[in-house]
Amino acid sequence: MKTPKVALIMGSDSDFEAVKPCIKRLKSFGIETVVRVLSAHRTPDESKDFATNAEANGFDCIIAAAGKAAHLPGVLAAFTTLPVIGIPIKSSTMDGMDSLFSIVQMPPGIPVATVAINGSDNAAILACQILSLRYPELGDKMKQLKCEMREKVLEKDAKIQALADEI
Amino acid sequence: MKTPKVALIMGSDSDFEAVKPCIKRLKSFGIETVVRVLSAHRTPDESKDFATNAEANGFDCIIAAAGKAAHLPGVLAAFTTLPVIGIPIKSSTMDGMDSLFSIVQMPPGIPVATVAINGSDNAAILACQILSLRYPELGDKMKQLKCEMREKVLEKDAKIQALADEI
Amino acid sequence: MKTPKVALIMGSDSDFEAVKPCIKRLKSFGIETVVRVLSAHRTPDESKDFATNAEANGFDCIIAAAGKAAHLPGVLAAFTTLPVIGIPIKSSTMDGMDSLFSIVQMPPGIPVATVAINGSDNAAILACQILSLRYPELGDKMKQLKCEMREKVLEKDAKIQALADEI
Amino acid sequence: MKTPKVALIMGSDSDFEAVKPCIKRLKSFGIETVVRVLSAHRTPDESKDFATNAEANGFDCIIAAAGKAAHLPGVLAAFTTLPVIGIPIKSSTMDGMDSLFSIVQMPPGIPVATVAINGSDNAAILACQILSLRYPELGDKMKQLKCEMREKVLEKDAKIQALADEI
Amino acid sequence: MKTPKVALIMGSDSDFEAVKPCIKRLKSFGIETVVRVLSAHRTPDESKDFATNAEANGFDCIIAAAGKAAHLPGVLAAFTTLPVIGIPIKSSTMDGMDSLFSIVQMPPGIPVATVAINGSDNAAILACQILSLRYPELGDKMKQLKCEMREKVLEKDAKIQALADEI
Amino acid sequence: MKTPKVALIMGSDSDFEAVKPCIKRLKSFGIETVVRVLSAHRTPDESKDFATNAEANGFDCIIAAAGKAAHLPGVLAAFTTLPVIGIPIKSSTMDGMDSLFSIVQMPPGIPVATVAINGSDNAAILACQILSLRYPELGDKMKQLKCEMREKVLEKDAKIQALADEI
Amino acid sequence: MKTPKVALIMGSDSDFEAVKPCIKRLKSFGIETVVRVLSAHRTPDESKDFATNAEANGFDCIIAAAGKAAHLPGVLAAFTTLPVIGIPIKSSTMDGMDSLFSIVQMPPGIPVATVAINGSDNAAILACQILSLRYPELGDKMKQLKCEMREKVLEKDAKIQALADEI
Amino acid sequence: MKTPKVALIMGSDSDFEAVKPCIKRLKSFGIETVVRVLSAHRTPDESKDFATNAEANGFDCIIAAAGKAAHLPGVLAAFTTLPVIGIPIKSSTMDGMDSLFSIVQMPPGIPVATVAINGSDNAAILACQILSLRYPELGDKMKQLKCEMREKVLEKDAKIQALADEI
Repeated sequence: MKTPKVALIMGSDSDFEAVKPCIKRLKSFGIETVVRVLSAHRTPDESKDFATNAEANGFDCIIAAAGKAAHLPGVLAAFTTLPVIGIPIKSSTMDGMDSLFSIVQMPPGIPVATVAINGSDNAAILACQILSLRYPELGDKMKQLKCEMREKVLEKDAKIQALADEI
Repeated sequence: MKTPKVALIMGSDSDFEAVKPCIKRLKSFGIETVVRVLSAHRTPDESKDFATNAEANGFDCIIAAAGKAAHLPGVLAAFTTLPVIGIPIKSSTMDGMDSLFSIVQMPPGIPVATVAINGSDNAAILACQILSLRYPELGDKMKQLKCEMREKVLEKDAKIQALADEI
Repeated sequence: MKTPKVALIMGSDSDFEAVKPCIKRLKSFGIETVVRVLSAHRTPDESKDFATNAEANGFDCIIAAAGKAAHLPGVLAAFTTLPVIGIPIKSSTMDGMDSLFSIVQMPPGIPVATVAINGSDNAAILACQILSLRYPELGDKMKQLKCEMREKVLEKDAKIQALADEI
Repeated sequence: MKTPKVALIMGSDSDFEAVKPCIKRLKSFGIETVVRVLSAHRTPDESKDFATNAEANGFDCIIAAAGKAAHLPGVLAAFTTLPVIGIPIKSSTMDGMDSLFSIVQMPPGIPVATVAINGSDNAAILACQILSLRYPELGDKMKQLKCEMREKVLEKDAKIQALADEI
Repeated sequence: MKTPKVALIMGSDSDFEAVKPCIKRLKSFGIETVVRVLSAHRTPDESKDFATNAEANGFDCIIAAAGKAAHLPGVLAAFTTLPVIGIPIKSSTMDGMDSLFSIVQMPPGIPVATVAINGSDNAAILACQILSLRYPELGDKMKQLKCEMREKVLEKDAKIQALADEI
Repeated sequence: MKTPKVALIMGSDSDFEAVKPCIKRLKSFGIETVVRVLSAHRTPDESKDFATNAEANGFDCIIAAAGKAAHLPGVLAAFTTLPVIGIPIKSSTMDGMDSLFSIVQMPPGIPVATVAINGSDNAAILACQILSLRYPELGDKMKQLKCEMREKVLEKDAKIQALADEI
Repeated sequence: MKTPKVALIMGSDSDFEAVKPCIKRLKSFGIETVVRVLSAHRTPDESKDFATNAEANGFDCIIAAAGKAAHLPGVLAAFTTLPVIGIPIKSSTMDGMDSLFSIVQMPPGIPVATVAINGSDNAAILACQILSLRYPELGDKMKQLKCEMREKVLEKDAKIQALADEI
Repeated sequence: MKTPKVALIMGSDSDFEAVKPCIKRLKSFGIETVVRVLSAHRTPDESKDFATNAEANGFDCIIAAAGKAAHLPGVLAAFTTLPVIGIPIKSSTMDGMDSLFSIVQMPPGIPVATVAINGSDNAAILACQILSLRYPELGDKMKQLKCEMREKVLEKDAKIQALADEI
């Protein structure tokens, strides 16, 4: 009996802070989460091997985070037919626009499901939505999360209304 | 016994040419494809109803194409926990950059899996990869497509080598 | 006898600091100001309900502030024929350009009156100018504000001339 | 008894094609429409005079279209407290981005209600929404337009569904 | 006998720090420098009057600094045939790109001589070069400045060579 | 007795069409106009020689047009203290933005007076305004041009009003 | 005795027209030129193999052209220590800016020597300059090309001077 | 017997911090490194002389770093046929985009091998790869560096896996 399993690959250990929300969210969903540093350019063989064997190793989906030229998500996608989610990481220059373009503008045949710049939480949620097709219990958790998010906004709405009255 | 079913929603009928490759690809995978024009702004109730009932109506995934402010994918995502794939459409101004930013920069909690500007073929392929989690036969078709794409590149490689020799 | 009433909706409570100048300005005009947190994506039903009923609830105009994909102003505009003013909020990435494009590039039929990035004070002033069509006293206040702004520039002009002499 | 009256000012006669949809839409609403070419830079006195006297001359709102440095809407706004709507016109370079930034990024105190690049139809609709505060019959027409727009999308939806079946 | 005289106009007193290098440089050239705060939008009449009378008041050139929509240089240029130099000021959003486009993209007939974003020192140097046509002694000072700049680079070159040896 | 003389340098003969309006305008002012093709990169020595000797050869001002990396205006400015006006030329990629940045963002000490992308007519007008400091008759011609431009706008204004009535 | 040998790899046969100038130039230098279509995403193994063996196969340098996400140059660079030159290809959207960022913004350790968008002729010239370190005769050819380029500019200079006289 | 020798030229001593990694890396390869401050605009003659004589002075390659209009690499390339590597430096405005465009968009005939914004370490590595054509021992060092980089990523991979387990 298979259990949900996702890989979160980052191109550099300097991306770790940015992807933490993704790891936390995946674990909160009860998804087995394997976290790796693999570089499309400095460890290309390890990247290839990981992607090539990901499906056989029980992964349902790969999330890849990278900054600047940000080839990692596309390079992994080249070696697997699992869905690959890309997180463009904002680096010290260009405000993340280079990462976004490098990840989202993939050529015909090899898509990368791109989320917002530094949108690592959303990458986890998207993964959960995708895995729900195979694991219905994740669909239930996702629906519950949606309710909780709504509740939080309603609470903040009440709080802000009070704060605004004081202005 | 459930069969694979995807909705392709466009924000305007002027997007039809741009999304045709998506429809063709989905049909080539044998995925039941429902094509609709729904406007986030001009038919918001119909958009809401569609997304709210999409899962109950047997859809596995929603693909939404939109240009300019391009709210459609995000608006649909607000009413469903199915994975939503967004296709930014290039319009007469801004070269598709407005559509891309409006679709990909979704706030925490409601991701849209964004593909390249006018990348409608890739949206279909991404949908197929996602649906493979539930329908293993789609995974096989996807692997076959990957082989075919490789073959085509190899053919072009041979052809271009010949052409280059004549220069 | 109707009195002037404006809604200021923000997409997230994190926008509160950015919209404070708007609230202060609206109150300084004596405009009844209802401040809400409504998310186009996390509380879409509440957003729809608010906009649908805004006119019946006595609102003359809606101001909506949002960052990143920034769908809120457009989503509210979909459900009302009241004028909707949009404030693009600068977030941690892209310097507010994503918010601006997502708000201003609305499709034909559903305009959003967009002001500058983080231009929340101007949103209030624009609302006052719009409401002046129904409430002539607001037109007088607006003319007075214009005089005061002129006076302030003249004062600063004198002050800077003195400072410049010391260089 | 006052009747609705709007000025549509363009910065150059080369903008005429781009603003035609605005003129047509305003006239379809039964709004008296005065169309002028006024240049913020080549006829600054005429621009100033027009804006200064606009309210006294019975105008409810000013729409101004301009390209490139696009100072016209802001310059008119400097001399009136009427709401000013700005239409950024796409010119031969920069895809309208220069016009958009020059119009929307107005300093505190003098807002311009900016619509999409070349969004002249929406400028008319926004004007109608604004004027509805004074002329309730325009509110009715606006609601009717919204219904018609919805109907058109529904028709296109049906048509596209048929076309898609043939693919 | 006329003496060199330049006006440095800023659109807001918040630009004062950014234009200080310009004032210092102009004074170092012995150019009479009148510094003013004039707003294209909040004191449009004063702006117009200043520009209209600038030549009669003995000014040889106008330098105008402004941020965001940055209409000031263009508005002044509309009322004078003196050369107008524009300094785009970087504000809290858009990294000065909005100011640059608003100043440099002037329509045919009314040029603004634009320098770099926050390039206030260069605005003074450009003014000096322009005024040299009328005041030959400024040409000499400019040539001397060019020599001094060269000397400074040579000194820094020597210093950096030493520092680099220690690495 | 000196007469007004301007150099118009283009970086490539492919810029000729774009700079023709500049040549025509300069000649219409009665300014002696020397037109050259000099490349900052392919004929750097000729570029240097030209700029170094420009003042001695009687030039009052240099106008330089260039596209893409567009170093020409800055390179000429390095070898002269005459005012240098830069025209960013739009090339086949990047819509002229690369040319604009390369020309306007000059470092402290060496300004280039930048006009709009492809703004070659304005470059001539700016040159005329600058030369007016030495040749008062050019100031008169410039004032006359300003009157004529105003007249033309007034004519177009009348014509467009008539056209608009027919809509 | 080794002879100069360069690989020109394009990511898609649709890049062929854009890279033709590169092939012609390389052949004009007498450099043995192997032209291939290799896709970083559709034929990743062939790409890896080519790069891994390039040095052993006698190549001195690799030139890679790619559009959109444009991973090819970086992916090849990952598997070789030969210098890799990248040509960003302009595609149907984004004016080549996506290709440029994806190629030039490589992470520390794996540089790609990037030339201008569609700058395929320059890629060949850069390759020739690099190969000159090993093959001195290429240095001589490069110096000769530089002379010829200078001659051509001088000719065009004379021609344009004549054309300008007729205006 | 020639030894490897590279020049690292910066346009301003303020670039020193940004280019230090380049100097360190070059020295770690045992490449003789001459570090200079030369300004394309303030010391154009020294820049020209340096580039003109670089080959005769035993340099194999020139690396040039510059910000903003960033003409230095192109200006040096005009006077030599040695390969020139350009490092775009991020300055206080425009996030380095101006420097990148000014350096990479060189016209046909005079390429500059551009690396990432502030990518000074990669400039050194690219220089080493280029020099390897003449000095085979540098090729060995480059291969060793590639191994070390791989090792470091593997170490970080192990470390991050451990850190991720604790989340």
